[in-house]
Amino acid sequence: MEQNSLNDTICAVSTAPGIGGIAVVRVSGPDAIKVVDRVWHGLPIAEMLSHTAHLGEVLQDDGSVLDQAVATIFRGPKSYTGEDVIELSVHGSIYVQRALIESLCKAGARLAEQGEFTKRAYTNGRIDLVQAEAIADIIASRSRGAQRLAISQMRGGVSKKIAALRNQLIDLASLLELELDFSEEDVEFADRSKLLSLARQTHAEIVRLLDSFSTGKAIKDGIPTAIVGETNAGKSSLLNALLGDDKAIVSPIHGTTRDVVEDILPVGAHFLRLMDTAGLRQTSDAIEQIGIDRTIQSIDKADIIILVIDPTADTDPQILAKINDALNASPEVSLLVIINKTDLASPDQVRAARQMVTTSIPDRYLNTSNSGENSFAESTTHSNIIEISARNNTGVDAVHTALQRIASERLDTATDAVITNIRHQQELTLAAESAQTTIDALHAGIPGDLTAQHLRATIAHLSSLTGQITSQTLLQTIFSRFCIGK
Amino acid sequence: MEQNSLNDTICAVSTAPGIGGIAVVRVSGPDAIKVVDRVWHGLPIAEMLSHTAHLGEVLQDDGSVLDQAVATIFRGPKSYTGEDVIELSVHGSIYVQRALIESLCKAGARLAEQGEFTKRAYTNGRIDLVQAEAIADIIASRSRGAQRLAISQMRGGVSKKIAALRNQLIDLASLLELELDFSEEDVEFADRSKLLSLARQTHAEIVRLLDSFSTGKAIKDGIPTAIVGETNAGKSSLLNALLGDDKAIVSPIHGTTRDVVEDILPVGAHFLRLMDTAGLRQTSDAIEQIGIDRTIQSIDKADIIILVIDPTADTDPQILAKINDALNASPEVSLLVIINKTDLASPDQVRAARQMVTTSIPDRYLNTSNSGENSFAESTTHSNIIEISARNNTGVDAVHTALQRIASERLDTATDAVITNIRHQQELTLAAESAQTTIDALHAGIPGDLTAQHLRATIAHLSSLTGQITSQTLLQTIFSRFCIGK
Repeated sequence: MEQNSLNDTICAVSTAPGIGGIAVVRVSGPDAIKVVDRVWHGLPIAEMLSHTAHLGEVLQDDGSVLDQAVATIFRGPKSYTGEDVIELSVHGSIYVQRALIESLCKAGARLAEQGEFTKRAYTNGRIDLVQAEAIADIIASRSRGAQRLAISQMRGGVSKKIAALRNQLIDLASLLELELDFSEEDVEFADRSKLLSLARQTHAEIVRLLDSFSTGKAIKDGIPTAIVGETNAGKSSLLNALLGDDKAIVSPIHGTTRDVVEDILPVGAHFLRLMDTAGLRQTSDAIEQIGIDRTIQSIDKADIIILVIDPTADTDPQILAKINDALNASPEVSLLVIINKTDLASPDQVRAARQMVTTSIPDRYLNTSNSGENSFAESTTHSNIIEISARNNTGVDAVHTALQRIASERLDTATDAVITNIRHQQELTLAAESAQTTIDALHAGIPGDLTAQHLRATIAHLSSLTGQITSQTLLQTIFSRFCIGK
Repeated sequence: MEQNSLNDTICAVSTAPGIGGIAVVRVSGPDAIKVVDRVWHGLPIAEMLSHTAHLGEVLQDDGSVLDQAVATIFRGPKSYTGEDVIELSVHGSIYVQRALIESLCKAGARLAEQGEFTKRAYTNGRIDLVQAEAIADIIASRSRGAQRLAISQMRGGVSKKIAALRNQLIDLASLLELELDFSEEDVEFADRSKLLSLARQTHAEIVRLLDSFSTGKAIKDGIPTAIVGETNAGKSSLLNALLGDDKAIVSPIHGTTRDVVEDILPVGAHFLRLMDTAGLRQTSDAIEQIGIDRTIQSIDKADIIILVIDPTADTDPQILAKINDALNASPEVSLLVIINKTDLASPDQVRAARQMVTTSIPDRYLNTSNSGENSFAESTTHSNIIEISARNNTGVDAVHTALQRIASERLDTATDAVITNIRHQQELTLAAESAQTTIDALHAGIPGDLTAQHLRATIAHLSSLTGQITSQTLLQTIFSRFCIGK
């Protein structure tokens, strides 16, 4: 399609949609300077030095003045896309934004596709594919942890790691290929045991990177968290108390999209993805609805389980049994137990509830603070059991603090090379598989040409990850995640 | 309040709220360079030449890298505010925007109040008050006509007009004051008849400007338009058909705010404000609701009346009578008659409906195209009577075209000096009143010192309009209309 040509000069509003003090319209392409000069009244764009800003006026398509504007020029290749780029900063009215785009299109530009500026940056070798994807992640980031990961990726953290792995494999491959050239002489240039050890090492590093995905995903998308407990234990009150504090912070920033059935709870540098909370909110009114079913469903998907207990009522042993099952199945899961309704419960009831929890759940999940010789029978404190009154908002801060600590324990160990992208996970999975096949082949003494083939497959998957090998479909998919204007 | 001090360095996100490809954070004030340097990694801001852009990195409050950024510096007084201004262009994530503002605040800036950047531009003499208000209008503009008026005001159209009037009055006043200095000698320096003629001329110009308000308001806020007709005539179908075409244009731009009970219909360079259409939409389902009451209410406020007639049913003569009353009361009102349901009505029914309209409504409102000698009894066409089928969407384009023509006839004659602001209208009303009092005083031969007092009042109102005289409360009111970041 000619429409999609790199020879086109493209334009788009690059700032958030809607009304703002200013809006920035970006133009990029071989004719960017010529196109903007047609809608510009002031020092001719062609005469501007790169990286300078100039006050002038942008014109409507009929030649009348549309708005005052500042034009900033970035001459290629020292620009975001590597091409000539002009940024026009105008007043952020809907009309002005639309009219300027129309003007530019009449002057010879076309509207950019989603992510097309970044795609050009990639095509022109300014960034690799992993970095391009990281830019989309930065734009979507909503916590310090997610931003930190994305910025590290954009600056090349993962790319460097992949490049290093790829180079190791290419070394391996060249040794094998050399052997093939002399195959008739039946010489083994490559020391098989050395090859095997190198292949194993590479495989291990791919697997390590692959394993970082669950951490990366939790940092980027939030830690999947289930609030469970019986109907009327106060799950929805707890949810509202937890989110209540947050709303004040989030509300000044419009446009934060909340998932339909999930709530987002920031905890320090990270955030929790509270599962099925829309349903949870409904249950507070519908007493007859049975909490157990819902509990069982959400526990299996959670990395953190928040169990809410009502000490004034009997707790169904099924719930504790189910949680124990979940912990046995995934020992990595974190648990936080909330004993609610301290305003209504007697001290005996609270103590009984605590007792019930400590006898049925292994201590390590309850994070006994005073362990071993310092413990006292009565006063043993478990930092993962918290007494609160959601109704009176007492103890909710302690819940926040505990969740922040748990999130931090789970995620702060993440290194620079953490993958967060399902495409990366898929490519690395394939790379790990073919690396394993290579190892098996070396081990079994399979002829060098077959082994080399597996090795080349591994290299291909890593190259595809950073975009050294790509398909149009892949690029389409990646850049459609972007907003227009980036 | 120290909080509001002009010595503070202020910062804010200046682009539209929400997620975008990029976001621009603006910093202005005496310490802008110092403050940004604390969160900037790259060429020191202090070393940058004015009006240059530089790639670097912005830092979190803990010193870690927040994002890649482009810093553009505008050294005062050649900047928007007249102070040192730095614009930081970062990736438009919610997190990055918030974290950068936090970083800047920790580095010594404070969050700008609404409109504070523009207020500083005014305080530092970069623009007058009318121009400052025009900037808010540009940002809010949603049609070509509104943008054209606002840009003309921002470039000084109204300001120049007011300044000219003010100078005329100051000349007048100085003549009178001179007379007062020599009052004991009973000399009349100022030729009374010349003074009178000058005062009358100035008064007439103020009134002319004042009269432009209704035009200005219609350009800026839309032409108040009533869709009237009996229940079941097809008002809501027409409304949907009219807006349907528009939605495709408007929808790609998010954040366009629709009034709660009114719809906005763009017609060429202008737009109509369709009154009470929320109610109108309801009536289509509630057959029993009487259309007449609603009609009577909305007709009185409308500049354009769209009358929808169902030729397959009898039309209540009250409606036509009411419309005639409205036209008699405000001859400036425009009328467009829609004969709907051409898919259901027989040609005879359509002809009868047309006949009914032409006999009861004066011809000039129906805009007879073939007038005088060229008219034929049967085929006289009235360009303001249109036959459509809203259900089949036939004829709707003709309605659009007619509305565009009517809007253009009403508003395109507007000159550069058109006021759009209710504050300006109020000040000009007071100025006109005291100008009239001056005329009366001159006419009655009232002593010069009393006359001079009225004259000074007129000058004061004009000065207050452009902001040469202001109160804190007034400034507060004006700049609270702005978004933060402008």
